[in-house]
Amino acid sequence: MAGAPTDIERIMAPDAVAVVGASTDETKRGHQAIVTLQEGGYEGDIYPVNPNAEEIRGLDVYPAVSAIPGRVDLALIVTPAHIVPSVLEDCAETDLAGAVVIAVGFSEAGENGEQLEAEIVSLAREHGIRLIGPNTSGMINVHRGLNLVGADTVPEGSLALLCQSGNMAISLFTEAATREGVGFSHYVGVGNEADLQFHEYLPFLDADPETDAIVCYVEGMSDGRAFLQAARDIVPETPIVVLKSGRSDVGKRSASSHTGSLAGDAAVTDAVLEQAGVVSVERSDELLSVANALSSLPRADSPNVGILADGGGHATLAADACSERGLSIPRLTDQTQERLQAVLPDAASVVNPVDVAGGTDNDQSVFVDCAAAIIADPNVDALMLTGLFGGYGVRFAEQYTDVEIEAARELASLAADHDTPLVVQSAYEGFDTEPHAVLREQGIPVVESLDVATASLSALATYGDRVAVADQSSDFQLPAATTDDTLADTIGNGRTQLSEFEAKRALADDGFPVTPFDLATSADEAAALAADIDGPVAMKVVSPDIVHKSDAGGVALNVGLDAAAATYEDLCSAAAEYDPDASLDGVLISPMRDAGVELIIGVVDDDQFGPVVMCGLGGVFVEVLEDIAFRALPLTEADARAMLDDIEAQELLDGARGNPPVDRDAVVDLLVAVSTFVQANPSVTELDLNPVFADADGVEIVDAAITLDEQPQQHTKNEDTESAAPSQGETDD
Amino acid sequence: MAGAPTDIERIMAPDAVAVVGASTDETKRGHQAIVTLQEGGYEGDIYPVNPNAEEIRGLDVYPAVSAIPGRVDLALIVTPAHIVPSVLEDCAETDLAGAVVIAVGFSEAGENGEQLEAEIVSLAREHGIRLIGPNTSGMINVHRGLNLVGADTVPEGSLALLCQSGNMAISLFTEAATREGVGFSHYVGVGNEADLQFHEYLPFLDADPETDAIVCYVEGMSDGRAFLQAARDIVPETPIVVLKSGRSDVGKRSASSHTGSLAGDAAVTDAVLEQAGVVSVERSDELLSVANALSSLPRADSPNVGILADGGGHATLAADACSERGLSIPRLTDQTQERLQAVLPDAASVVNPVDVAGGTDNDQSVFVDCAAAIIADPNVDALMLTGLFGGYGVRFAEQYTDVEIEAARELASLAADHDTPLVVQSAYEGFDTEPHAVLREQGIPVVESLDVATASLSALATYGDRVAVADQSSDFQLPAATTDDTLADTIGNGRTQLSEFEAKRALADDGFPVTPFDLATSADEAAALAADIDGPVAMKVVSPDIVHKSDAGGVALNVGLDAAAATYEDLCSAAAEYDPDASLDGVLISPMRDAGVELIIGVVDDDQFGPVVMCGLGGVFVEVLEDIAFRALPLTEADARAMLDDIEAQELLDGARGNPPVDRDAVVDLLVAVSTFVQANPSVTELDLNPVFADADGVEIVDAAITLDEQPQQHTKNEDTESAAPSQGETDD
Repeated sequence: MAGAPTDIERIMAPDAVAVVGASTDETKRGHQAIVTLQEGGYEGDIYPVNPNAEEIRGLDVYPAVSAIPGRVDLALIVTPAHIVPSVLEDCAETDLAGAVVIAVGFSEAGENGEQLEAEIVSLAREHGIRLIGPNTSGMINVHRGLNLVGADTVPEGSLALLCQSGNMAISLFTEAATREGVGFSHYVGVGNEADLQFHEYLPFLDADPETDAIVCYVEGMSDGRAFLQAARDIVPETPIVVLKSGRSDVGKRSASSHTGSLAGDAAVTDAVLEQAGVVSVERSDELLSVANALSSLPRADSPNVGILADGGGHATLAADACSERGLSIPRLTDQTQERLQAVLPDAASVVNPVDVAGGTDNDQSVFVDCAAAIIADPNVDALMLTGLFGGYGVRFAEQYTDVEIEAARELASLAADHDTPLVVQSAYEGFDTEPHAVLREQGIPVVESLDVATASLSALATYGDRVAVADQSSDFQLPAATTDDTLADTIGNGRTQLSEFEAKRALADDGFPVTPFDLATSADEAAALAADIDGPVAMKVVSPDIVHKSDAGGVALNVGLDAAAATYEDLCSAAAEYDPDASLDGVLISPMRDAGVELIIGVVDDDQFGPVVMCGLGGVFVEVLEDIAFRALPLTEADARAMLDDIEAQELLDGARGNPPVDRDAVVDLLVAVSTFVQANPSVTELDLNPVFADADGVEIVDAAITLDEQPQQHTKNEDTESAAPSQGETDD
Repeated sequence: MAGAPTDIERIMAPDAVAVVGASTDETKRGHQAIVTLQEGGYEGDIYPVNPNAEEIRGLDVYPAVSAIPGRVDLALIVTPAHIVPSVLEDCAETDLAGAVVIAVGFSEAGENGEQLEAEIVSLAREHGIRLIGPNTSGMINVHRGLNLVGADTVPEGSLALLCQSGNMAISLFTEAATREGVGFSHYVGVGNEADLQFHEYLPFLDADPETDAIVCYVEGMSDGRAFLQAARDIVPETPIVVLKSGRSDVGKRSASSHTGSLAGDAAVTDAVLEQAGVVSVERSDELLSVANALSSLPRADSPNVGILADGGGHATLAADACSERGLSIPRLTDQTQERLQAVLPDAASVVNPVDVAGGTDNDQSVFVDCAAAIIADPNVDALMLTGLFGGYGVRFAEQYTDVEIEAARELASLAADHDTPLVVQSAYEGFDTEPHAVLREQGIPVVESLDVATASLSALATYGDRVAVADQSSDFQLPAATTDDTLADTIGNGRTQLSEFEAKRALADDGFPVTPFDLATSADEAAALAADIDGPVAMKVVSPDIVHKSDAGGVALNVGLDAAAATYEDLCSAAAEYDPDASLDGVLISPMRDAGVELIIGVVDDDQFGPVVMCGLGGVFVEVLEDIAFRALPLTEADARAMLDDIEAQELLDGARGNPPVDRDAVVDLLVAVSTFVQANPSVTELDLNPVFADADGVEIVDAAITLDEQPQQHTKNEDTESAAPSQGETDD
């Protein structure tokens, strides 16, 4: 942090803080804030602000921020909501970098609140002040003793917490307080994200020497795409772990009434966070432990875990838990097994998981011998010690404590020497024993829950791959369109829904592999086109007014050559009957194809993350099983490959049921091409290729639908594109 | 327990215990066992047995059990394995009820150990002694102070633990020691289950007034079916919670090397335990909390949960966690919402989840007002309080502690008055606060993890349904066959695989809905049979030597009338080419059918639970997604319905994708009929109806395969059925 500090540095590590709304009344937040600052050991300047007081706890009180003689970095504003605008006005001429706005009653509280929030954002921007909140519990710089929250004791450590719930923050502080070795560097209650948003804290925390990992509790992000971008840039150095709530429908409803945030689709959120190299956890009881493991341990080079257990039960359960999380428990080499056999009783299992079978009952240094053998094994890149370690002194005989302490020291050294992550699960975690303290001092996590221990190992094992994929991702900032958006012009008339013929033509013109198609505008022409095609044909009515062709009786499959002309008439009559006012462009004629594997590929617009590519297996897989992969646009080849790996039933791509494997490269190319197409045509709000047939020879788009925005526009904000396009004509499909 | 005590009563609650292998050496188990008994407060008689000692810790030592003057109920045998037979011999003439055999080196340790285990079981049976173990850590009757394990402190309480791992027992004791309000009545290390098996302890524990719930850690059961039977009989009174390890392949390998038990398929185990009304947990960190909740709380009448949170974060996360577990968070009635609004600030959410939004900051009795409103709501049958309750005194101001204590008392009364389960999740669980102690005294669980709290509520909410379904289950004891097993006689020649024709005939004769079929033995006959059928036909070669007809080119579908004769010849030639030695019975001819929804229904023989009916949707659903429901035979209608509910993609049965709903009753009837058929034909080891077509009008079996045991036998053990059937001829399919 050389040179003049940036605004965000002055906000996150201020040298001088004003408390606006400071109070002489000891029960008031405006008083407690001063107490907390003084007692927390904050060494910067503290300026109470209150027009009606002269002195609070030995400090001079100023009538306004503008009246403070020195430079103030940050103002903590504890006044009610309606006072905030005048406070910001008063700061117009000061060099204030930022303000923390505690008050509720803004956008989370309905229309009036939304107006007030817009007003303070506007004032803040005008006066060059960044805002944290409003509707926040505050912020804390733990190492500086700067506690603007009033939270009791926040254990010091290396985790930064960005949090959208004050009570969740208290929960996490409390959890850390009972888990030795876990603590915090910074806390920010991001509140309504009216100005400063989640992503804007990331570069500061990445550069902060006191922060090793970032923990986020997110209900909804106001700029998800910017978060992806900022996250991707820092994850190689600073891991980010996110707990996203509002996963269920009821949860979404609850989250939106809480912070006024939109809680988007959990499947999309999980997928795009993975794309950016962020680790997601689904359970709140895993958040802190996973983050702690990522902050203090090296990454594993592979998902291959060695399990060292002091009993068969723990060995078996650990193997189950690891398998459940996608970790592997490879056989140890013969050499390793011999080393283990040499120090363990005959009853021991030495294949992996290793069960010492009583071999450590009287001498816990045997754990070190075993760990040394396992860690040296080339098949293994991470180690879990599970069972009772650290509790032998408590459980069996006091003299074991010293043996365990020495063993703990050696285990930590071993792990450090081999740069191998080691996680210790112990039933005695709650006893805060000395051997556990030794492990924790060396950065080795000790956890009580086997499942939480496994979640931590899993994060360490997948983290490297994630960062590598993220590193190959494009920038998430959507570039301005590089070509003119001609699609909308092409179809004209303010229409938003392209016919299948128009959609296929646009795609085919762009080089997409579309099943051959042509438009017949008469029965004779239909017969002629069918004659040009080898084998039976598919015929579909084309009308700008009919979206659901099947419902209209407008689709005929497997039509023989002789029947093509009659079928043309049938389809047109059926369409006319379905909607007498529909204008008919003709009938689309294509050869019939064998399905191979049916895919659905599309682009949808996510509330938080913008345009997102989706891909799934056709039919029930998407519709019933919701087995769908998502990635934020623009897609790289690595992203597209990762999407296919995300599909649970992907076995079907690899030749299940006696079929030859699908040409994955062709699917990957198609996914990337879809991404490129939508970027180049920013008026496209929805694209649906359903079905796409894939087999060993490639892919073919069999049906396509494209929906445009009401008026041509670019994904990036562009204020020149206001036009008077008609506002009706939206499809509600 | 009136009348003379049974053997199991004398074993589990003995009045006199012999310690065989008692020792004067303080470091030996045979000495420590005496110390533990004396110091644990055991009031029964203790008889040390050792031919080479006279007195240990003030007790007379006897040279043998047979030399003890008084009646001995239970012997703890701590001698090495090879001594155990002579100890049992010595007990021949005594009135010993049982013995706990600690030694390892039996069936878990290979062939010699297996022999030794068979020997001690045989001796024990001969002399009327029941055995716990071998390879066990022992047993404990906590309330009597009878600790035969040497485990340090086992918290007293109402959970009985049956456990197949000594270290897991220590883990659970340790976990309970740090969780106020959770404790044990009995512990049995079942070890190798050489004699006494899991199920044999259940009736005693059910009758035991000190036991409210049973916790099982299971690696593999030697008589799973007997466990189902015993469990089903007691679950209405005494809940059983099972953690089954060895779920993964590596876990299975590990479990079998640990106890020598077979660790069967996890999906089968989960399903049949559910059938018997047993609650399964998959995570070891949920086991104790779920059991504790079931032991102390009333069941919920529905899965409808009210959530009361002191912040939006907890409200949202709790809603997510509940939804994830299949619980519902219904809207509260308008009346309830009004009651809540009356006591909460405007910012509060009152729909459900309820977020008090600061409304309890200064007065925690508001929690009681809110809980009263929610508990009285007719839409809600369970309550979760989540967030910081019990920590206000710690976190905010000491004077709140008294308010919280009073609130805790009132919350517990409320729950009791309404017979509604209440689970409290608190970030301050680890602080052991007074309000938490008050809740726990009243049987209200307080847990730190939101996910564990939710698991507990989920168990309470589903328990009633489970017990009701279990109550409708048949006895799991398979009755002896009620009809002669004619299938094997019919096909003769020691064959084990019925041809499709034979299988369909057997099923059709029994009234199963099989697609019409007939056997053509010449091309002319094929043409004649095809002519009798309306529309195209399916033709399949029938040969006792060809199991995989498709692989042999022996199947033709959609054959028109004109082609039937030629196809007959084609199929026969193809079969002859595939296997020149195959004898051909002819060609099976059936009408073609529309699939509707394709099902696979079958019976498989599970290692632990015997014959099990399976059912899934056809094709990829079973083969790729492993979306399969299982139930142990014999099946009741309720079981069959529950199976269909277990199928994840069951939406497809209900008319997904525009199809009319499948006739579930017909599927249920078929499942029950399959169960009845296999019971009546105990020589059937495998039955496979694949596919079965189901639609709105019913079901039809389109293909069927039946495999018989090598020699006719009954599922129940019958020593008269030894025969000299040839042992070759097994299929390896």
